[in-house]
Amino acid sequence: MSAPLRVAMIGHGFMGAAHSVGWRQAPAAFPLPAQPVMSTLVGRNADAAGEAAARWGWEETSTDWRDVITRDDIDIVDIVTPGDSHAEIAIAALAAGKHVLCEKPLANTVAEAEQMAEAAARAAASGIRSMVGFTYRRVPATTLMRDMIAQERIGAVRQVRASYRQDWLADADAPMTWRLDKDRAGSGALGDIGAHAIDLCQFVTGQSLRSVSGIIETLVLERPLMGESVGLSGTAANGRGRVTVDDVALFTARLESGALASFEATRFATGRKNALEIEVSGERGALHWNLEDMNALGFFDATRDAGEQGFTRILVTEPQHPYLSGWWPAGHMLGYEHGFSHQVKDLVEAISAGAQPEPSFDDGLRVQRVLDAVERSAAGGSSWTEV
Amino acid sequence: MSAPLRVAMIGHGFMGAAHSVGWRQAPAAFPLPAQPVMSTLVGRNADAAGEAAARWGWEETSTDWRDVITRDDIDIVDIVTPGDSHAEIAIAALAAGKHVLCEKPLANTVAEAEQMAEAAARAAASGIRSMVGFTYRRVPATTLMRDMIAQERIGAVRQVRASYRQDWLADADAPMTWRLDKDRAGSGALGDIGAHAIDLCQFVTGQSLRSVSGIIETLVLERPLMGESVGLSGTAANGRGRVTVDDVALFTARLESGALASFEATRFATGRKNALEIEVSGERGALHWNLEDMNALGFFDATRDAGEQGFTRILVTEPQHPYLSGWWPAGHMLGYEHGFSHQVKDLVEAISAGAQPEPSFDDGLRVQRVLDAVERSAAGGSSWTEV
Amino acid sequence: MSAPLRVAMIGHGFMGAAHSVGWRQAPAAFPLPAQPVMSTLVGRNADAAGEAAARWGWEETSTDWRDVITRDDIDIVDIVTPGDSHAEIAIAALAAGKHVLCEKPLANTVAEAEQMAEAAARAAASGIRSMVGFTYRRVPATTLMRDMIAQERIGAVRQVRASYRQDWLADADAPMTWRLDKDRAGSGALGDIGAHAIDLCQFVTGQSLRSVSGIIETLVLERPLMGESVGLSGTAANGRGRVTVDDVALFTARLESGALASFEATRFATGRKNALEIEVSGERGALHWNLEDMNALGFFDATRDAGEQGFTRILVTEPQHPYLSGWWPAGHMLGYEHGFSHQVKDLVEAISAGAQPEPSFDDGLRVQRVLDAVERSAAGGSSWTEV
Amino acid sequence: MSAPLRVAMIGHGFMGAAHSVGWRQAPAAFPLPAQPVMSTLVGRNADAAGEAAARWGWEETSTDWRDVITRDDIDIVDIVTPGDSHAEIAIAALAAGKHVLCEKPLANTVAEAEQMAEAAARAAASGIRSMVGFTYRRVPATTLMRDMIAQERIGAVRQVRASYRQDWLADADAPMTWRLDKDRAGSGALGDIGAHAIDLCQFVTGQSLRSVSGIIETLVLERPLMGESVGLSGTAANGRGRVTVDDVALFTARLESGALASFEATRFATGRKNALEIEVSGERGALHWNLEDMNALGFFDATRDAGEQGFTRILVTEPQHPYLSGWWPAGHMLGYEHGFSHQVKDLVEAISAGAQPEPSFDDGLRVQRVLDAVERSAAGGSSWTEV
Repeated sequence: MSAPLRVAMIGHGFMGAAHSVGWRQAPAAFPLPAQPVMSTLVGRNADAAGEAAARWGWEETSTDWRDVITRDDIDIVDIVTPGDSHAEIAIAALAAGKHVLCEKPLANTVAEAEQMAEAAARAAASGIRSMVGFTYRRVPATTLMRDMIAQERIGAVRQVRASYRQDWLADADAPMTWRLDKDRAGSGALGDIGAHAIDLCQFVTGQSLRSVSGIIETLVLERPLMGESVGLSGTAANGRGRVTVDDVALFTARLESGALASFEATRFATGRKNALEIEVSGERGALHWNLEDMNALGFFDATRDAGEQGFTRILVTEPQHPYLSGWWPAGHMLGYEHGFSHQVKDLVEAISAGAQPEPSFDDGLRVQRVLDAVERSAAGGSSWTEV
Repeated sequence: MSAPLRVAMIGHGFMGAAHSVGWRQAPAAFPLPAQPVMSTLVGRNADAAGEAAARWGWEETSTDWRDVITRDDIDIVDIVTPGDSHAEIAIAALAAGKHVLCEKPLANTVAEAEQMAEAAARAAASGIRSMVGFTYRRVPATTLMRDMIAQERIGAVRQVRASYRQDWLADADAPMTWRLDKDRAGSGALGDIGAHAIDLCQFVTGQSLRSVSGIIETLVLERPLMGESVGLSGTAANGRGRVTVDDVALFTARLESGALASFEATRFATGRKNALEIEVSGERGALHWNLEDMNALGFFDATRDAGEQGFTRILVTEPQHPYLSGWWPAGHMLGYEHGFSHQVKDLVEAISAGAQPEPSFDDGLRVQRVLDAVERSAAGGSSWTEV
Repeated sequence: MSAPLRVAMIGHGFMGAAHSVGWRQAPAAFPLPAQPVMSTLVGRNADAAGEAAARWGWEETSTDWRDVITRDDIDIVDIVTPGDSHAEIAIAALAAGKHVLCEKPLANTVAEAEQMAEAAARAAASGIRSMVGFTYRRVPATTLMRDMIAQERIGAVRQVRASYRQDWLADADAPMTWRLDKDRAGSGALGDIGAHAIDLCQFVTGQSLRSVSGIIETLVLERPLMGESVGLSGTAANGRGRVTVDDVALFTARLESGALASFEATRFATGRKNALEIEVSGERGALHWNLEDMNALGFFDATRDAGEQGFTRILVTEPQHPYLSGWWPAGHMLGYEHGFSHQVKDLVEAISAGAQPEPSFDDGLRVQRVLDAVERSAAGGSSWTEV
Repeated sequence: MSAPLRVAMIGHGFMGAAHSVGWRQAPAAFPLPAQPVMSTLVGRNADAAGEAAARWGWEETSTDWRDVITRDDIDIVDIVTPGDSHAEIAIAALAAGKHVLCEKPLANTVAEAEQMAEAAARAAASGIRSMVGFTYRRVPATTLMRDMIAQERIGAVRQVRASYRQDWLADADAPMTWRLDKDRAGSGALGDIGAHAIDLCQFVTGQSLRSVSGIIETLVLERPLMGESVGLSGTAANGRGRVTVDDVALFTARLESGALASFEATRFATGRKNALEIEVSGERGALHWNLEDMNALGFFDATRDAGEQGFTRILVTEPQHPYLSGWWPAGHMLGYEHGFSHQVKDLVEAISAGAQPEPSFDDGLRVQRVLDAVERSAAGGSSWTEV
């Protein structure tokens, strides 16, 4: 095994907890070519950072990310802050010669994302790697979906139906959080969860979205100010704040091949908790996946005997399925955070192999450009808009 | 019981078989205020009409609908021909003082539909009734959905997600049929199955669609000419014909209340056989239904204890559910054609009561106007378009 | 087409309604070799019989079954009375040279069933046919299941898991009906619904049950006396009656081949309305079916590529599926009563062909012998008992 | 926080990996009253133990469990060896004053289990705690099921339907493993997976099984000898070994209250990978759970309005659900190994509080006695047998 890879994580919200599981679990689940070490957790509030570091297993903490990213003993910078700070931190870290894992969305604007992609390209020339954190690519079932499409198990793709539906804002009295503030979050349902649907579509089909037509909307304009953050939402405090991001985004799109796609991102789908769902219809079959039943992949094989066709519910927990070598016998379910372990595995392997990890900052930029095109279309009466 | 109602049915394709079940079964299932009599089946080909009449239980046949609709012994004219002949037959039948049941879509154009609605209004003044055949309103589960929304079980409607997905054109060698010829069918996936999704949305929410943005597309432009009709498709013959209707339609819409909706109608959703699906998300709950599991209604009640919330699968086969008085004990499934029996029941009851049956020709016109707006939007770069 | 077959139906409860649908619908759905004519409905109460006949489409009524079964103009006697009268009517009808369709269970005792089977054998020598009404064999999905097992799509059968669960007695105040009176019904959950599970197991596997071990139990011993019959249950009246049949039966069994099976029949499975469910596990695959999702068949094919295995949900509505030629395009659901149309089709075809229809009285007797063995085992401390 | 609790784990097979996740993750997910330290991994083969320890994060290894359990710096002994060694190690560890976590089944025989329960009782008098590892009690959905039954959400329990179905032996050429050798494993499907179903039934109902009737069977008597262990099964080597445990066990049971239950444990249910399933039917409702959809709990509430009843799919990922405080926002799935983290949490809390953790060795003994009664019944022609 080569030298350890020492990691600094900037930020410690919900995503910090999830990334920490990845750093902690990946080495136990998979034989890695280099051992990641959970070195430094960075947060502005020293007490909060200390508490998080102790709980999640980081060796030490810092309140100054600028200092940490230049330290010789740090190899990887893992960014889990809100989107408005991604560009600054990532560009600085890459410039300092650190490999960077940046939580999605890559940035809050196309301009920032472009700068980050350029920085990543420059760094790559020196063997410095960068990756954006679309972990839903690393659910075994979605990876298998990508593989099966690449192997032409459903033939040419004709239609995609993708959606990400949650309901944590359905209650009009759910409190404000930074996720509802455009300055911090950059975007609402569109950028937060729609981005996952876009990336997943581009990932499994191997195609970019070329043009879009969309509508975005804020259904509840003011919400109670929150006390402290709890999960995705929070607890109420005094006064009301203005929601400056979208609650719902609906859009249609055309892929490179001309195939059509429809997208929905909403935080108002009452009863849908975390329903990232995608169906790809091809000439010879179809594939379907839903995050709320994340270990299963639906596969319709139109080449089977006509009387025996139907959607097959593949339980993606067999030894030969992607990432399953690290886990349990067939039929033992994986959960949300396994994607973070797989992300660490793939990043560490790419760094060790001197290869470009995926999704790259370019992939993140592609998503950002789609988000931008949807916003432009929505602002222009939903007219058809090039990405 | 009052005098019998003698029925003439114009046409005898797949829809003729389904309507015949309705006329035959309704009186056995429900205590009707008047007895429908299956009198005359009309078809251009006397042999084919004769065979159909004998099989389905019609007393006699005719090859001349103009003659039949003026006969004194006919009370109801049931139109199951392709859409291009609906306007002519229905207007003539109403003028002749016959109650009219017209299969959907009401017509192939808004202009025709307007004329039909006007004719229906004139006839109504003389106690002549008219109805358009959107039978999916009469599945017990969709009727219950409408009732529950009207009773505010989910609060104000915020979003609707509707789709009708089939795959009988996914095979690029599936043959031409009249349904793929714009002159006969008027529209493709949009008008044939999208119309059902639109009507269902308007029915269950009690709201009209106000504006739309859409895209429509023909994925396969030429198909083998067919020998004879079999179900929705047919068997192949010589040569190739040009498909002049759409295969796929995707559109978003805004309801009267401002709520957002998304629609998809496609005949290329590989593996989806007859998936008319609708989900309505409200402030206090949600309702979900899928024709491929037609006896079940999903209900999410956001007012229940937080720890016990979830989608409830209501099996809509209980004695107190809509239309169930006529059928079997709880848990015994109904099928596709029960909607036609319910349609007959409701039409006969409305005629006997001197009331306007629903869906009216106005309802059919409303759907036609939405279809037209989607086509105009699609022709105009998907720009937002008033209905 | 040969001469019509004139039918007399003895009884007019819930089963009479269902059988009437079969007689009415089968000729419209299928090209039959002989035309069944709904001639005479027989009931002890002339008014009730008259009302039922008018509603269901029978030409006339009678209060005397003995008279009717000897009439020259009657070809088929359809028995839908409670089980205690089956033997007497069926044996007399067969002796009178009438084809007999007898609703299940064949009889209330093995002795009666043996006499009926003997009578059927004697009659068969003269070309007189007899059939017992296990209609769940005639759901397209169960017929397909039988066909696939016969075609060795799952290899040798190793295990069967069958159950029929309802909950209409879960309410301890649900009223008495004749179905809870051993003198009328012969048996409770075991004989009423367990019989369906047993017949279905024997049908799809093509094997008899050889030995059993079981327990049966009555959970609620007294119930309110009912006013009038409604569906399976009824409305309450004065006083309480003694429940003399079982509420729950649990048993294990061994098939001819040595394969193991488990059975459950209960009317106390709260929330399960009509859940007849069967899973057959074989050496190379498995098949699963549930009456509450009756148009679907689950098929696990262990010979597929390991990474693509899973239960396939076959929607049994394709043109090539059993019985589907008579119905609708793919994806259009069938319901409970379609089994009765299929039963009529198969009976009429067998009579016309001079062939033995299935299930025969011998098949009915086989079920009766299993029921008897379960009761004997239960009475003997669940000890293993030969059928 | 009090002093750390230093843990030694004896064994390092599949269960060792799972237990290690629990020790590693629990402190990061939950605020524990004492910090568990992964001190020593014990295995007979020093190299294999060393590799496992390095991978899973244990500080050091030993090849001598007798030595380790007497060390002053060890507080907890975690036993994950095959069942034939549980009694010796657990009794010795308790005698040495160590808290013991013992993987299920508690032992291979009732006699051993009784000795262990006695040793646990003696140790408890000195404040030494013991626990048996039925982790399926600690899936949030099963814990919620227990809570809801205890809160009388379904009224008195009338019936239980429990099964654990796998298919890893369906292939007659699947190789031998220690799990198929009675000397090592003690029992086959019955003791390995049936034990989980029994414990789960006793846990959620709060009742013991009182009497049983069952059949057990070995379907494939010889299997290829295996090279090395992979997951539950292994890879083939030379020769064939004799299977000395059961492949299938079917039994019925009576609970303390008189309620009836049916059980199935099988490794031959083709297509069922890890289907531990339980349904409890009560006077006022029912609850259903399936490990293959482990984050959902089905709840039928018979007290709701009749027209709105149905099984509600509760996604047990809300903040107020059991154990969810430690994990992700609503709708983010948990997996198989989370039960091991919850087990560590509960054990550490019980030790710190000086309380008896559950399931206790007595609970383990109760399961063992049921297994024994089933075997006795099966040996005696399935006759009804007291536990």
